Amino acid sequence: MVHRAYNFSAGPATIPLPVLTKLQEELLDWRGTGMSVMEISHRSQDYLEHVLKPAQANLRQLLEIPENYQILFITGGASHQFAMVPLNLMGQNKQADYLHTGIWSEKAIKEAQRYGDVNVAMSNADSQFTSIPAQETWQLNPKAAYVHYTPNETINGVEFRYIPNIEEKIPLVADMSSYILSRPINISKFGLIYAGAQKNIGLAGLTIVIIREELLGKAYDLTPTLYNYQTYAEHQSLYNTPATLSIYLANLVFEWIISTHSSLSNMAVINARKAAKLYNYIDSTSFYQNNIATDCRSIMNVVFRLPTLELDEEFVKEASAADLTNLKGHRLVGGIRASIYNAMPEAGVDALIDFMRQFMERHG
Amino acid sequence: MVHRAYNFSAGPATIPLPVLTKLQEELLDWRGTGMSVMEISHRSQDYLEHVLKPAQANLRQLLEIPENYQILFITGGASHQFAMVPLNLMGQNKQADYLHTGIWSEKAIKEAQRYGDVNVAMSNADSQFTSIPAQETWQLNPKAAYVHYTPNETINGVEFRYIPNIEEKIPLVADMSSYILSRPINISKFGLIYAGAQKNIGLAGLTIVIIREELLGKAYDLTPTLYNYQTYAEHQSLYNTPATLSIYLANLVFEWIISTHSSLSNMAVINARKAAKLYNYIDSTSFYQNNIATDCRSIMNVVFRLPTLELDEEFVKEASAADLTNLKGHRLVGGIRASIYNAMPEAGVDALIDFMRQFMERHG
Repeated sequence: MVHRAYNFSAGPATIPLPVLTKLQEELLDWRGTGMSVMEISHRSQDYLEHVLKPAQANLRQLLEIPENYQILFITGGASHQFAMVPLNLMGQNKQADYLHTGIWSEKAIKEAQRYGDVNVAMSNADSQFTSIPAQETWQLNPKAAYVHYTPNETINGVEFRYIPNIEEKIPLVADMSSYILSRPINISKFGLIYAGAQKNIGLAGLTIVIIREELLGKAYDLTPTLYNYQTYAEHQSLYNTPATLSIYLANLVFEWIISTHSSLSNMAVINARKAAKLYNYIDSTSFYQNNIATDCRSIMNVVFRLPTLELDEEFVKEASAADLTNLKGHRLVGGIRASIYNAMPEAGVDALIDFMRQFMERHG
Repeated sequence: MVHRAYNFSAGPATIPLPVLTKLQEELLDWRGTGMSVMEISHRSQDYLEHVLKPAQANLRQLLEIPENYQILFITGGASHQFAMVPLNLMGQNKQADYLHTGIWSEKAIKEAQRYGDVNVAMSNADSQFTSIPAQETWQLNPKAAYVHYTPNETINGVEFRYIPNIEEKIPLVADMSSYILSRPINISKFGLIYAGAQKNIGLAGLTIVIIREELLGKAYDLTPTLYNYQTYAEHQSLYNTPATLSIYLANLVFEWIISTHSSLSNMAVINARKAAKLYNYIDSTSFYQNNIATDCRSIMNVVFRLPTLELDEEFVKEASAADLTNLKGHRLVGGIRASIYNAMPEAGVDALIDFMRQFMERHG
């Protein structure tokens, strides 16, 4: 029996065990080729037919991506998108709206400010990022080239439970790194979504972009070739060598969702149940505290605190010894964070709650 | 016994079997953590101590990198560098020299031309990229911010057997994607070298940059944060999540070189012998033809042609059936290409020559 912890890392994060096992089995000899999938050309027939095209098709099926959207595999983290989005979409008037709901949206704002006028149409900084102000209070700019937001703030544990309602002619852009594949998404409401792979998709170093075709080909002249979405769209993500293993692993994850859960609606039910169990248990104690408004608590990243910083630290230490790993909150905010992405089984959440109960008995 | 072909792919390329085996063994449970190395944080103590720092130290040891050079791990392919180099190094006068020796240096030139005045100081296009004009004939610009060249042209099979002799105050920049680790390199002669990992280092989607510290911090104002070398240098390549598995695998490759060959001088001896065997055999026939000038034939990528296009095709097909795979030349030039990077054992070259002999007997 292999030793496996319940790994609550925010990313790079736990990967479904059947996916890792399949990678392991095929590692020296993929499909009888006598080669690993990581040793073959991205332009080979084998790679195109058994990796790249299935990856696109499976993602399209899972997210029900309409025909007029392209799927791009971009090597690099989602942080590249903080520059790529303004460089590609800001257009002539160089104005864009951003919603500020936590540390990740803030990073996106800071990079975009280097390229044009950023209107922060809403910020929840006053609430210490614990709530999301109602849409009626947002100050949207009717001339904005797009509206950018972060549906789930991985560090702060805050999420939108709805898609912002903005003018139809203005593209909505979303950083879905810790949100994608956790539930169905109405793609047609978005101009562009992007997601780093290391949470719900697989390996760090790959970002998936889903873009409405009409938004392609509008980048500034001096945009680096590999920062231009058009380059990826024109060349089916093969302008240069992509992160071939990461795309292969992403496809194994897509296949795992399809074979195990069949749809994102089913996945959403499980994810909602996992989160509800954890929040309900937290709310049933005064020892554990989550101070996010209940209508915007993250389904993927559950943050909480214990009565003292010392107890936070002891909790992380004892949990780790009990094979409940990587529960330390992000270095910028502290506390505890349990990331419960798709690959975290419900049994892992149950085990965490059991541990929390015991820990409170010992230290409460 | 696992089925393994001799894989002559130009990249993504064959990886040393002991490296793949180690990855396979550790895949579900790395160092007793109950997690895969790809499932843990890039900022964790485990990752820093057992992956990132050893990777830097091992590379520094192998290439004897001086103290005043930094090693950067940049997610993405070497093609990003075609824009990053001018954005970071072209400076105020926006002039740079480029040497044009094949398809890869041409790509670097085209991207650089978007950012400033590129002086093509030398081109071997007249010879169909089969020779390298003597240094005395180059038209170097004394005001150039740097000189860029491609020590080995992976597609054309042409390499420099010497380091260009340029003015000391002008930084020399080299695309070493298919050259790095094949032999010792006098790093102090260079301002910056970069290398995509998918040839002699490991996985596609990672580029290693080695930069003299005095060249940091000079990027144009509007350079995207993740296109600025300074960002990587300041944050030890951890500004954002890097390609954690790719760095881990790179380190396994570094360890493999150290434990198996102990130094790059030893590696160079084997590589020279592998290439010499193949070129000598080619030159001993009139059936196989390599038309690169003998003083600049690539040690890593041996290109050749058969008497007809039909025979080229048949050769690739029959070789593949004999588990000598990926011998087809690049789509832009055709013919045959045997890439014989570090991970290709000498026995693989011997097997290829045996096959070539038999093929000629059948079809010659």
